[in-house]
Amino acid sequence: MSRRQRKRSKLSRIKRRTPPGAMPGTLVVDPTAPRPVINVIEYDGSSCREEAGVSVEGVASIVARRARGAASQGDGSSSAGVLWVDVVGLGDASVVQRLGELFGLHKLELEDIISSHQRSKVEDYADHLYLVMRECTNDKELEQDQISLCVGRGWVVTFQGKAGDCYEPVRQRIRGAKGRITVSGSDHLAYAIIDAIIDSYFPALEHLGERLEELEDETTRSPSNATAEAIHDVKRDLLTIRRAVWPAREAVSSLMRDHHALISAETRIYLRDCYDHLIQMIDVIETYREIGSGLMDMYLASVSNRMNEVIKVLTVIATTFMPLSFIAGVYGMNFDRESSAWNMPELYWRFGYFFALGVMALTAGTMLTFFYRRGWIFARRRAERSHNDHGDKDRSG
Amino acid sequence: MSRRQRKRSKLSRIKRRTPPGAMPGTLVVDPTAPRPVINVIEYDGSSCREEAGVSVEGVASIVARRARGAASQGDGSSSAGVLWVDVVGLGDASVVQRLGELFGLHKLELEDIISSHQRSKVEDYADHLYLVMRECTNDKELEQDQISLCVGRGWVVTFQGKAGDCYEPVRQRIRGAKGRITVSGSDHLAYAIIDAIIDSYFPALEHLGERLEELEDETTRSPSNATAEAIHDVKRDLLTIRRAVWPAREAVSSLMRDHHALISAETRIYLRDCYDHLIQMIDVIETYREIGSGLMDMYLASVSNRMNEVIKVLTVIATTFMPLSFIAGVYGMNFDRESSAWNMPELYWRFGYFFALGVMALTAGTMLTFFYRRGWIFARRRAERSHNDHGDKDRSG
Amino acid sequence: MSRRQRKRSKLSRIKRRTPPGAMPGTLVVDPTAPRPVINVIEYDGSSCREEAGVSVEGVASIVARRARGAASQGDGSSSAGVLWVDVVGLGDASVVQRLGELFGLHKLELEDIISSHQRSKVEDYADHLYLVMRECTNDKELEQDQISLCVGRGWVVTFQGKAGDCYEPVRQRIRGAKGRITVSGSDHLAYAIIDAIIDSYFPALEHLGERLEELEDETTRSPSNATAEAIHDVKRDLLTIRRAVWPAREAVSSLMRDHHALISAETRIYLRDCYDHLIQMIDVIETYREIGSGLMDMYLASVSNRMNEVIKVLTVIATTFMPLSFIAGVYGMNFDRESSAWNMPELYWRFGYFFALGVMALTAGTMLTFFYRRGWIFARRRAERSHNDHGDKDRSG
Amino acid sequence: MSRRQRKRSKLSRIKRRTPPGAMPGTLVVDPTAPRPVINVIEYDGSSCREEAGVSVEGVASIVARRARGAASQGDGSSSAGVLWVDVVGLGDASVVQRLGELFGLHKLELEDIISSHQRSKVEDYADHLYLVMRECTNDKELEQDQISLCVGRGWVVTFQGKAGDCYEPVRQRIRGAKGRITVSGSDHLAYAIIDAIIDSYFPALEHLGERLEELEDETTRSPSNATAEAIHDVKRDLLTIRRAVWPAREAVSSLMRDHHALISAETRIYLRDCYDHLIQMIDVIETYREIGSGLMDMYLASVSNRMNEVIKVLTVIATTFMPLSFIAGVYGMNFDRESSAWNMPELYWRFGYFFALGVMALTAGTMLTFFYRRGWIFARRRAERSHNDHGDKDRSG
Amino acid sequence: MSRRQRKRSKLSRIKRRTPPGAMPGTLVVDPTAPRPVINVIEYDGSSCREEAGVSVEGVASIVARRARGAASQGDGSSSAGVLWVDVVGLGDASVVQRLGELFGLHKLELEDIISSHQRSKVEDYADHLYLVMRECTNDKELEQDQISLCVGRGWVVTFQGKAGDCYEPVRQRIRGAKGRITVSGSDHLAYAIIDAIIDSYFPALEHLGERLEELEDETTRSPSNATAEAIHDVKRDLLTIRRAVWPAREAVSSLMRDHHALISAETRIYLRDCYDHLIQMIDVIETYREIGSGLMDMYLASVSNRMNEVIKVLTVIATTFMPLSFIAGVYGMNFDRESSAWNMPELYWRFGYFFALGVMALTAGTMLTFFYRRGWIFARRRAERSHNDHGDKDRSG
Repeated sequence: MSRRQRKRSKLSRIKRRTPPGAMPGTLVVDPTAPRPVINVIEYDGSSCREEAGVSVEGVASIVARRARGAASQGDGSSSAGVLWVDVVGLGDASVVQRLGELFGLHKLELEDIISSHQRSKVEDYADHLYLVMRECTNDKELEQDQISLCVGRGWVVTFQGKAGDCYEPVRQRIRGAKGRITVSGSDHLAYAIIDAIIDSYFPALEHLGERLEELEDETTRSPSNATAEAIHDVKRDLLTIRRAVWPAREAVSSLMRDHHALISAETRIYLRDCYDHLIQMIDVIETYREIGSGLMDMYLASVSNRMNEVIKVLTVIATTFMPLSFIAGVYGMNFDRESSAWNMPELYWRFGYFFALGVMALTAGTMLTFFYRRGWIFARRRAERSHNDHGDKDRSG
Repeated sequence: MSRRQRKRSKLSRIKRRTPPGAMPGTLVVDPTAPRPVINVIEYDGSSCREEAGVSVEGVASIVARRARGAASQGDGSSSAGVLWVDVVGLGDASVVQRLGELFGLHKLELEDIISSHQRSKVEDYADHLYLVMRECTNDKELEQDQISLCVGRGWVVTFQGKAGDCYEPVRQRIRGAKGRITVSGSDHLAYAIIDAIIDSYFPALEHLGERLEELEDETTRSPSNATAEAIHDVKRDLLTIRRAVWPAREAVSSLMRDHHALISAETRIYLRDCYDHLIQMIDVIETYREIGSGLMDMYLASVSNRMNEVIKVLTVIATTFMPLSFIAGVYGMNFDRESSAWNMPELYWRFGYFFALGVMALTAGTMLTFFYRRGWIFARRRAERSHNDHGDKDRSG
Repeated sequence: MSRRQRKRSKLSRIKRRTPPGAMPGTLVVDPTAPRPVINVIEYDGSSCREEAGVSVEGVASIVARRARGAASQGDGSSSAGVLWVDVVGLGDASVVQRLGELFGLHKLELEDIISSHQRSKVEDYADHLYLVMRECTNDKELEQDQISLCVGRGWVVTFQGKAGDCYEPVRQRIRGAKGRITVSGSDHLAYAIIDAIIDSYFPALEHLGERLEELEDETTRSPSNATAEAIHDVKRDLLTIRRAVWPAREAVSSLMRDHHALISAETRIYLRDCYDHLIQMIDVIETYREIGSGLMDMYLASVSNRMNEVIKVLTVIATTFMPLSFIAGVYGMNFDRESSAWNMPELYWRFGYFFALGVMALTAGTMLTFFYRRGWIFARRRAERSHNDHGDKDRSG
Repeated sequence: MSRRQRKRSKLSRIKRRTPPGAMPGTLVVDPTAPRPVINVIEYDGSSCREEAGVSVEGVASIVARRARGAASQGDGSSSAGVLWVDVVGLGDASVVQRLGELFGLHKLELEDIISSHQRSKVEDYADHLYLVMRECTNDKELEQDQISLCVGRGWVVTFQGKAGDCYEPVRQRIRGAKGRITVSGSDHLAYAIIDAIIDSYFPALEHLGERLEELEDETTRSPSNATAEAIHDVKRDLLTIRRAVWPAREAVSSLMRDHHALISAETRIYLRDCYDHLIQMIDVIETYREIGSGLMDMYLASVSNRMNEVIKVLTVIATTFMPLSFIAGVYGMNFDRESSAWNMPELYWRFGYFFALGVMALTAGTMLTFFYRRGWIFARRRAERSHNDHGDKDRSG
Repeated sequence: MSRRQRKRSKLSRIKRRTPPGAMPGTLVVDPTAPRPVINVIEYDGSSCREEAGVSVEGVASIVARRARGAASQGDGSSSAGVLWVDVVGLGDASVVQRLGELFGLHKLELEDIISSHQRSKVEDYADHLYLVMRECTNDKELEQDQISLCVGRGWVVTFQGKAGDCYEPVRQRIRGAKGRITVSGSDHLAYAIIDAIIDSYFPALEHLGERLEELEDETTRSPSNATAEAIHDVKRDLLTIRRAVWPAREAVSSLMRDHHALISAETRIYLRDCYDHLIQMIDVIETYREIGSGLMDMYLASVSNRMNEVIKVLTVIATTFMPLSFIAGVYGMNFDRESSAWNMPELYWRFGYFFALGVMALTAGTMLTFFYRRGWIFARRRAERSHNDHGDKDRSG
């Protein structure tokens, strides 16, 4: 029951947003959202500096320092490496506002970052790209968190609602200077983050695949009302994942195709890999959805079949005993023999009782033979036998 | 019942229009429509003048004044700010006709303004744009009102059937000179109005989402005929919203893409935000529709299950008591012992009665064991227990 | 029954056509088709000449006169106004043949004109356009008639199978010289006819909308086999209309977009209006189709529910009376007291009868309580009460 | 039963083809295919020479003669008329091979000609076109035959599996020199053959339309298991036709659009006519498929309704007689009056028997009234009456 | 049961992949995968050298030799023939790594080769093409194996998980120097392999077609729960094949259209043949899927029909015997004649017993006539007769 409750609150969440007709660019903070914590990583091919819990002004001074460095060297991005500012928690509009000023973000962008129910998308703002992705933070309950990426030349700013763990592998690759990541620009960092976000859906899909299999068994073996409910839940969860994955596919596809200046040709090859994962996921989702629909049909068929079985039992018993009871009823009548020798002479026969029992046995036998011929009784055993035969033939043939 | 009645009248409204074969551009006024009331707002970056209940000729003189001002300064729009003429009520063809002359509207445009069942669309008439949008004026009953926007350089004329409240936030932003609105042109005003109109559908969608959740619970807990009806109603309401939102999406998309001279690049960024909202709404609508369809399946499954349960009770009781009644019937027969010692000797046994009761108990026990083995009785308790086990495992695993 | 009969003949009509492998351009006249009657209207901005029942040679002489006039003035169309030849009835191939020669129609065109089951389409024959449209001549039975329009510079020739009334408003506009029609060319006349044809489907759609509403009520209130049949009929009628409207949309869209030399820019704006009507109709058709499908589901649900109700009554009565009958049966047994004091001593108790009646009352009470708890009896009343509560809450909340 | 058998063999045939991994261009002849018979027609505007049962070498000599003629005149096709080589029966790979050499056919083309389960398609081989079409040779069983057309400048070679009759009208037009066919080139001959092939599907569609109508009646009147089976069969047949017609549409569309040098502009107009027929057929097929699906729903509804009716009868009888039997049972109890005056005093009342019968009558009356009120008995009559009323209103209104 | 088990493990396999967030290009080897075995074939128009079980360094030396040969002759590919390196088993990352270095494969490519759940695709890496295809290695269980092809100028490297037999016909064609294969380049070899892979799905499809036919029979003849399950399984298998075939179609289409420099025009014609096979397969799959869905409907209809039949038997028997039992019950009442002459005088009539039996017979007769009229008894025989009539008419007509 509590599982449904949690589900319901999730469905509700789809709906909230800023009040109708509000000024565009209004930053309305969700009062329950945690206060932002800022983590900064700065790295280039040779070194990596990591700082947790930086204040907004701390970020401002880093940006200023990097700008001075860039100015003194002509072009900042390549020499100064990549700056990754990661903001966790969106509970303070002023922090987001100030970061927006520091990195030159548009006010509609800031509104989207704060309001946490955006679809995945890419927007091209001349000097930087704005990406929205959705991470799956819980495979069972399908909780999601919106992650906003602002990718400029030499810097990436990410915003997320709550601390997730999908960045960790990326950070470790940076720290360990493993792979291409530390020798590439901000576009490769963005790719690595996107890839990690997309991967967060695989366990959820895996979980749903397992549920489907369990439900296939349950439908065949012991379909109950809870089975139908569970199938419905799986279908709804698939819709939820689908709603996250389809737009992500469009966004990644647009990154690959639209030749944003910030995305290098080499990174595009890596994005193609991301895109393949998304396509694969969509394939699996659509297949699961069709299996889910088929399962509902099979469930209905199974329920009908069981009803059939129940009714057969009723029919066999009722139609066997009704004629018998009738016969017993006839010989329970009180017609008076004294009044007439024609009144129920059977009662006074020598073998009257056996005659009556015999008629009953005959009647019952006739009925049961009729039912056996129709396959209503002992049919299961026969069917099983013939199915086993078929199965064996199938295997040997 | 009255709810259905109102629904029905809404569905009917889809159908009425000008008589077949009427001359194009004929202005046939709905006789029940209220008389038009004209509100005028004129604003620029520094000031805002608002006048309610202006006559048509009042509008004419304002237009003339602005034309003189524009003529004396070369180009009118930037210096003279924006003029917003808002017409509420379409009950007088002559007013619409006169406004059409003042602002140079095409006669097919006027016909569309009057006939209130247009799809959302954008039409480009050289010097101005004509837009039709549909506002949702009641989230529960899904009442809609057609809003026509004529957007020229420096002016916007809006027509609506009845006074709605979706303009109010826009007006307040103009009065308070908040945001970009007062320093931008008529295109930004049009955007603000479109945004407000689109936002009017969110509460309706939210309401339908809540209904769906209630119905999910009801379907599982206590499905009745009213549940099926309610699911059907929600599906129909979703179709209605969908029919309003899809064309709106096309219209906004066309505004963004088709590079109308009147729409500035900056406004296009804002329209992209509108477009995102529409796409999000369509996403939600399609998801809700699939949930609705799934719900109908689950409803049918639930009804079948309940029937199964009812029939099981019947079968258990009937097949248990029929053999018992038969036995009682046998020993109620009147075969005469005097005629033959073979006639029902049990009746004269010492423990004949107990023997009969014993046979009955045995029969009943056999039947009940059979039913228990098949899971027809006390099955629910077992199923619940096993489901709870599974649930716990699920949570711990 | 007769309604179905008529339906059936309509469906059959889809199928007939010229014999397989016949030479293209063969004019095979339907033997039951009425003989053609030709009406001619000639008009320009100032005058209008109308003649009914003209012979083919009469048309030939008019064409010849107009050709002379055109030759003497250089360009004929603008000065000589528009000639509209309207042919009603396609029962004489020679008439169609002769008109084809007069106006330079292609022989495949003539074949299409005669064979009355074409889809709507536009074909561009260098000097003239050939259009096929389908008119709805009966909203209830959805009878259709094919209308062929050949539109040249300064002339329009229309062919229809039987006299319909959709031209009448167009003719009246010509006679009254109302609107743009008399001052525009043949393209505007073609537009006016197309508009009138399209409008002929609105009453049929309106009728279907009403039927759907009736059926929604019927499905909820008293679903019978006739309801299912009626829903099926409405769905089939929607398919029929759809098959007429979709190709019409393509045809009008092609007229608008393909820049046929004969269609002026001004007429294109009017065609956009036609196109909007068609799109609106398609919207309505698709919505109705979805409602129709949903209705079938609701019908099935409703039938299941009713069966459930019936079975509940059976179960309640049967399972209440069976144990009672059994008890009565037991005390109807004839075990002999003389043989043993253990044989049915209850029969000889002082309050044996009341004891038996008491046991029966207790049993019945237990069963009925069980059924009441499960909501099988008096449940409707409870459900109604709770629904009313909900409804009130819904209204007040 | 035998009908299904034949069906089944048809479905199976979809599957056979050359062994997996076989060398492309391998000519594997179906051993049951008849030996090829070659018919040759040579014609130009003035004459027509027809020869049946020509040997391959006979064809070779004709080709050689024509080549000499062409060489002596510069360009062969126009002067020498059109050569049509028609091969019936594909049982000899060497014949196909030799013809391939004579006319310069590609080896993959030859493989396709032999293997008889190709989809309709057009392939452009520089100097000739290769077309595959499927003919319907039996409207009831939907047997199909693959027809391959190789169309070169001045010649057409056709291959078919067995002698069909769809060429006959084309041949007669050639013999009679009727229509454009004899004065046009090989492209017009190809068109004429394609048109004849397409026409071969109309009778099959017509047959399916009739079946659907019969099934609509049957579903309403007397749905049996055979009805469901028949609906399923019609749906499968529609799928089969659809699989033949859709690719044909693509092929003809490609012929029309892709500006193959061999297809003249005039022939393109004729192909547009073919294309229209295909589109019409697809329209009809899709409509029939939707009707078929709706019919299955209606069938299920009808079966449910009938079950409802049966159960109502059971319920009415059972619930009426059970209380009566119970009452009779009560007064059949043997409580001993001697033991107590309280034991069943009714049995000794003066009007005890009438009292019992009265109670029974009252009970039965109450039950029947209850059922009548619920509309379970005599409801049909009432429903019919109200439906007739409605029908009349419908007709008069 | 074990069949389902195997199915389940297959569905599960869809899900596994490298851990979320892993570095791209990480080669994680499946621990259960077999160790790689390398087979090398080198051939040109005149000779063919085949070597099995070559070590990686063996391949390196062959590549080096060929590179020297190419350097000495200017262009290597044409003179040195084609080198085909076939790797079976992916259990050793270092082997794949080394081969990647030898042939210049990208690290994402290597990751894809190792992880065996890729969709079919083509990727263009400047100097070589990377293709993924899926082979069907078991028609019954639908086991699949991923085959990766890297196609460069003069060489093809293939990787597969386990030894399949689909290459064998290709190898034999190379050995026998049959067909174009030995005189063409590496593109033709790639084509031959792709063709063989695609062909591997035909037997599986054939098997499913046969299953469908069996299930059609079973559904009509003796639908059981196992039938529904089997239909569901076939539908799921079709989904699995479809998921393999659709991407293969895209990949082959991209090879044909995108004008990769490596694919010659001649090979493109052969790929068109492959593409045709894929389209044909998709056609068949979609048709089978629709038949499968229709079958599920028919199954439900069949189950409903059978239930109907069962309930009819119950109703006929119950409603016939209930009134009879009631009558017997009435005359089993013990109203005392002594107390009143009105108490059950029938019991003392001369022909009372026959009167009672007569009433019973009359009642039974009435009921049975009623049922016969409604077609509930002996209806099957009548239906069969009329169906036979129809069938005969159908055949003769």
